[in-house]
Amino acid sequence: MLDPDRLFPLERATRTLARSLYEQVAELAIISPHGHTDPAWFAGNAGFPDPAQLFVTPDHYVFRMLFSQGVPLENLGIAPRDGRAFETDGRRIWRLFAQHYYLLRATPSKMWIDHALSDVFGVQDALSADSADAIYDHLSSCLADPSFRPRALFDRFGIETLATTDAALDPLTHHATIAASDWGGRIIPTYRPDAVIDPDAGDFSKNLTALGKVTGEDTQTWRGYLKAHQKRRQHFIKMGATATDHGHPDATTADLGGAEAEALFDKVIAGDGTADDHRLFRAQMLTEMAQMSVEDGLVMQIHPGADRNHSTKMFDTFGADKGFDIPKAAEYTKALRPLLNKFGTDPALSLIVFTLDEATYARELAPLAGVYPALKIGPAWWFFDSPEGMRRYRETTTETAGFYNTVGFNDDTRAFCSIPARHDVARRVDCGYLATLVETGRLSHADAAEVAVDLAYGLAKRAYKL
Amino acid sequence: MLDPDRLFPLERATRTLARSLYEQVAELAIISPHGHTDPAWFAGNAGFPDPAQLFVTPDHYVFRMLFSQGVPLENLGIAPRDGRAFETDGRRIWRLFAQHYYLLRATPSKMWIDHALSDVFGVQDALSADSADAIYDHLSSCLADPSFRPRALFDRFGIETLATTDAALDPLTHHATIAASDWGGRIIPTYRPDAVIDPDAGDFSKNLTALGKVTGEDTQTWRGYLKAHQKRRQHFIKMGATATDHGHPDATTADLGGAEAEALFDKVIAGDGTADDHRLFRAQMLTEMAQMSVEDGLVMQIHPGADRNHSTKMFDTFGADKGFDIPKAAEYTKALRPLLNKFGTDPALSLIVFTLDEATYARELAPLAGVYPALKIGPAWWFFDSPEGMRRYRETTTETAGFYNTVGFNDDTRAFCSIPARHDVARRVDCGYLATLVETGRLSHADAAEVAVDLAYGLAKRAYKL
Amino acid sequence: MLDPDRLFPLERATRTLARSLYEQVAELAIISPHGHTDPAWFAGNAGFPDPAQLFVTPDHYVFRMLFSQGVPLENLGIAPRDGRAFETDGRRIWRLFAQHYYLLRATPSKMWIDHALSDVFGVQDALSADSADAIYDHLSSCLADPSFRPRALFDRFGIETLATTDAALDPLTHHATIAASDWGGRIIPTYRPDAVIDPDAGDFSKNLTALGKVTGEDTQTWRGYLKAHQKRRQHFIKMGATATDHGHPDATTADLGGAEAEALFDKVIAGDGTADDHRLFRAQMLTEMAQMSVEDGLVMQIHPGADRNHSTKMFDTFGADKGFDIPKAAEYTKALRPLLNKFGTDPALSLIVFTLDEATYARELAPLAGVYPALKIGPAWWFFDSPEGMRRYRETTTETAGFYNTVGFNDDTRAFCSIPARHDVARRVDCGYLATLVETGRLSHADAAEVAVDLAYGLAKRAYKL
Repeated sequence: MLDPDRLFPLERATRTLARSLYEQVAELAIISPHGHTDPAWFAGNAGFPDPAQLFVTPDHYVFRMLFSQGVPLENLGIAPRDGRAFETDGRRIWRLFAQHYYLLRATPSKMWIDHALSDVFGVQDALSADSADAIYDHLSSCLADPSFRPRALFDRFGIETLATTDAALDPLTHHATIAASDWGGRIIPTYRPDAVIDPDAGDFSKNLTALGKVTGEDTQTWRGYLKAHQKRRQHFIKMGATATDHGHPDATTADLGGAEAEALFDKVIAGDGTADDHRLFRAQMLTEMAQMSVEDGLVMQIHPGADRNHSTKMFDTFGADKGFDIPKAAEYTKALRPLLNKFGTDPALSLIVFTLDEATYARELAPLAGVYPALKIGPAWWFFDSPEGMRRYRETTTETAGFYNTVGFNDDTRAFCSIPARHDVARRVDCGYLATLVETGRLSHADAAEVAVDLAYGLAKRAYKL
Repeated sequence: MLDPDRLFPLERATRTLARSLYEQVAELAIISPHGHTDPAWFAGNAGFPDPAQLFVTPDHYVFRMLFSQGVPLENLGIAPRDGRAFETDGRRIWRLFAQHYYLLRATPSKMWIDHALSDVFGVQDALSADSADAIYDHLSSCLADPSFRPRALFDRFGIETLATTDAALDPLTHHATIAASDWGGRIIPTYRPDAVIDPDAGDFSKNLTALGKVTGEDTQTWRGYLKAHQKRRQHFIKMGATATDHGHPDATTADLGGAEAEALFDKVIAGDGTADDHRLFRAQMLTEMAQMSVEDGLVMQIHPGADRNHSTKMFDTFGADKGFDIPKAAEYTKALRPLLNKFGTDPALSLIVFTLDEATYARELAPLAGVYPALKIGPAWWFFDSPEGMRRYRETTTETAGFYNTVGFNDDTRAFCSIPARHDVARRVDCGYLATLVETGRLSHADAAEVAVDLAYGLAKRAYKL
Repeated sequence: MLDPDRLFPLERATRTLARSLYEQVAELAIISPHGHTDPAWFAGNAGFPDPAQLFVTPDHYVFRMLFSQGVPLENLGIAPRDGRAFETDGRRIWRLFAQHYYLLRATPSKMWIDHALSDVFGVQDALSADSADAIYDHLSSCLADPSFRPRALFDRFGIETLATTDAALDPLTHHATIAASDWGGRIIPTYRPDAVIDPDAGDFSKNLTALGKVTGEDTQTWRGYLKAHQKRRQHFIKMGATATDHGHPDATTADLGGAEAEALFDKVIAGDGTADDHRLFRAQMLTEMAQMSVEDGLVMQIHPGADRNHSTKMFDTFGADKGFDIPKAAEYTKALRPLLNKFGTDPALSLIVFTLDEATYARELAPLAGVYPALKIGPAWWFFDSPEGMRRYRETTTETAGFYNTVGFNDDTRAFCSIPARHDVARRVDCGYLATLVETGRLSHADAAEVAVDLAYGLAKRAYKL
């Protein structure tokens, strides 16, 4: 099912070189420094319930594509919020998925799923309406086996470190359970404080109260609020965290004076803030987070640029994360200036910025990362976590920012079984890119071999302090 | 003159595969669901007057390029509005064209013209100053022959269906003549109501009056105006139309309440509307058109993003459509939200959106089309109807939207003889892309063969309900 | 150290063709119509002081990359403004550079430096920490030799004409010295009046006074100010200039009435102008400069789009041009309309526009240059003066604007020894592109050979009237 030379360059000599570079990195341990797997899986180590709940129901890449061609989400096991009926029979969901699998032709999702079916589960046949039942049976029997439990798969996947993404208010009990267990897998949290930073978040006010409670700080005052962040970050650090993550609507930062920031905070928590005030508050908080990173050493990530819950109708019916988050044009040059002007040359800050607007790579992010010591460019993300997206990423960042202002690969996934597949795609595309550079006289063979290891393993490990 | 392997990938195994895929689709019937050929040609079936009037005078791609290098439009047979003299001698225009044909090197126009000269007219020599007269003579003698009349060419080109683009007020007499004839060619109109929707259009007020007259509705009231559209659309449907088309300056849509929409209409037709009111009215009307499409089944197309008549001087001298329409940055995520929020998940709507800003493919249109059932992405358009444009289109849409949220190819041309050439270019580029996917392990050979037929024929037929 | 087939296409038949096209242009004379070399070098013809001052200290591409990975600028020989100590030992700077040379892997800078080391200085070994001292010694002994003096290198590089960029107030004494010498090298100035046009420039008011003094015009009046420009341009023309250059923050142009322009000027020089007034004044001045170009024949260049001195902290410490100029999104369709509407079809104007936003090539600049006789597209610039940048440039401009609305290559460099390398890269990438067109049936072999010479030599010569 899988072409052993997949994703390598077409030209045969270059392909041969790509393959030899790839062979040197294919089996390196996986560093997964940013993602959304559920720590409960590894805490409880229960078997995954059924193939549909592993491959279809939690994967927005998959169900959004089927929905776009008329398959109702209910039929794919997505629960409506109002309690209406939805499909719960895994086999029926799986059959529907298999019938429509042709819609995913030439998408990264198909490549990941084929890889997981083949390499993780030993499936030999292509998934289709005809093979659906047999494959379902096979997967089900695998899932019943202890060797397919989360910890076993984690070990088998060769994951060295996996970071989850956790709300600031998350009690991190699963992480504690894992740490207290006799299992050696390294699973660490990431401090994601959006819900206690974004005044537009639902329950912002309640969240602040909760943050006050958990930290023992008075989060109704600016000083107390900042102190609460500092304390909570310390707790995350104690639990293994090495990074924060910020999912703002855009990358705007601000650098207000202390009094001005305090007045803004007071206005916002009083509920008197306008949309512009809320935007400014988020902007200011990015700079405050940078300040704290300078102090406590947490690597800072910004993931901006999605217009969340584009369809109000679908959000009302099914809730968030149903495939209706849509990118929009992004801007970094002006947006990051306040933060970078303050901390961009501080060796204590490490800031990793992602984008959903590829036009910003060559135009803004590579020029910025190519000069500011603090700034690094995150890998191709989300809709761009794909062979073409990765190729464009390298072609538009390397010439200005080089390799060493990038941070390796992030799988950023909720789909646990896709982790090896995703890293494999990145390693193949990168080795193909390096081979092309060598064959066009832009990189020596020896340098390519060294860079290949850095892109697959070293850069992520160093950038995230793992 | 034509390389039989043109536009296929360079690498030889991939080229061989592309050729074999192409051979399976090269002779499929042509579906031309959107274009600007003149229905009068097929109604009257008179011979084309001379080679210059077939290849030069009506083709803005051609004369804009010559003008950009100093050739006056008058010398190319373009009539100034003020009655000043202009060249009318076809042979002299043709010679001037031939002398400057080198300016079109590596453009799609040259590829189309070479294809038409070679395949349609059997010309053997490359066009140049030296060969100009001989080729002119040869073409002239062809054009005098009945086998080069419009209907004969239509049949010879293997066109299954050809849609023209027709103003809402167009009487469609030529379509009636064609329908009443004993000739079997299927030529259908498309409802293009810009002149009765855009308050900035010249004669907007007169056009509304005319729309009232032709439909028997009171177009001075909001209800009557909407009713008039509904009736006129029914007339177009009766004449064979399956689609509407909207050439707005941008893709902005709105979803006003009934009273608000009515008040806006009243203000606009009273001539009291500001530029913002006009923009909002156009935006609201896109949503109204979507509503009507839900009701009457017409497929809806939006072609936004050109800054029309960029040179006031040239517009004053020569009028519209003289090559001075220039694209600008586009935005879809916010712009389409009101319409998509209302009708985007309605299975009765089929909305095809085009762009002149390639940055929006991967960033906005593919993510939107990859989740909204109503939305599909139109093919690479206008300046992007080119080998590189088509390649970038596939590379930036497929990974997120797949193949089945696209709609095959549109030739969108006024240049009748270029139709086979344009479809041929699309088929070649698509087969080259598919072959590349196969050879890099992203698509199976069997799937590629199926997709090739869909891209060349099936998708256009289904998307436009033909 | 240099692959003789570097930058050619991977596929072997295409590579062979690219090589044969390249062989026809590799030794053509260099036209360098836009750059920033120092005329004092050629006036005084002193030897370059040491390798670090030739390769490291003046090259912002190089030191920005090292700075981005933590190397302090002081250690690279960049002088802080406050008189603080900085490294002045060339060998120590060179060692630091060599240790970090791996950061430049796969960047154009590395390709240029390797080319200069190998071809200009005959260095055999790759630069690294190990080879640093030996290479430093070798370079030092070369630089001590008269055959490595500026004029000798100029002659050896085969430069036919080299244009410098000179402030309007520059006395052009070095150009006069060169002209008066018995050396035959053609080095001409370019009129760059930003400091006497941009009200936001430091010392704007003083600069106007100085402009008045040098021209004998009253630059406190609008008429006198314009007259002063006209006279100063005449002086530059007398000294050999064929072009102007304008480094505005964006491409906005305006076409105010005479009285309105005068009132704006009065307000601006009175110091009463707002930021918008300053922007409008710059915009108006572009159109005034176009008017003057129509009259005196100077080719006009616009280089817009950089956000200069992004880090205030670094600007305060080290001054301008330290690698902290960052591109931002650009717009040309609306911005250039006033100027193009007035002079865009005037055969006496030749306007060359550059961009730092690649999205504007296919979307705006190619459509504009493909119709306006006055407008041509400058080559891939700055961060895009790179193999991938050049490839994207051709792929996004050629199909709409052809080859003849482009102007060949600009090296735009301060790094004298990189000039042959940069032109070589451009010639290789262009020949690779042309070979690809031939092998995919889009260009005949004979046409490709002709175009190759135009791209390498003819277009620049004609576009800049050299």
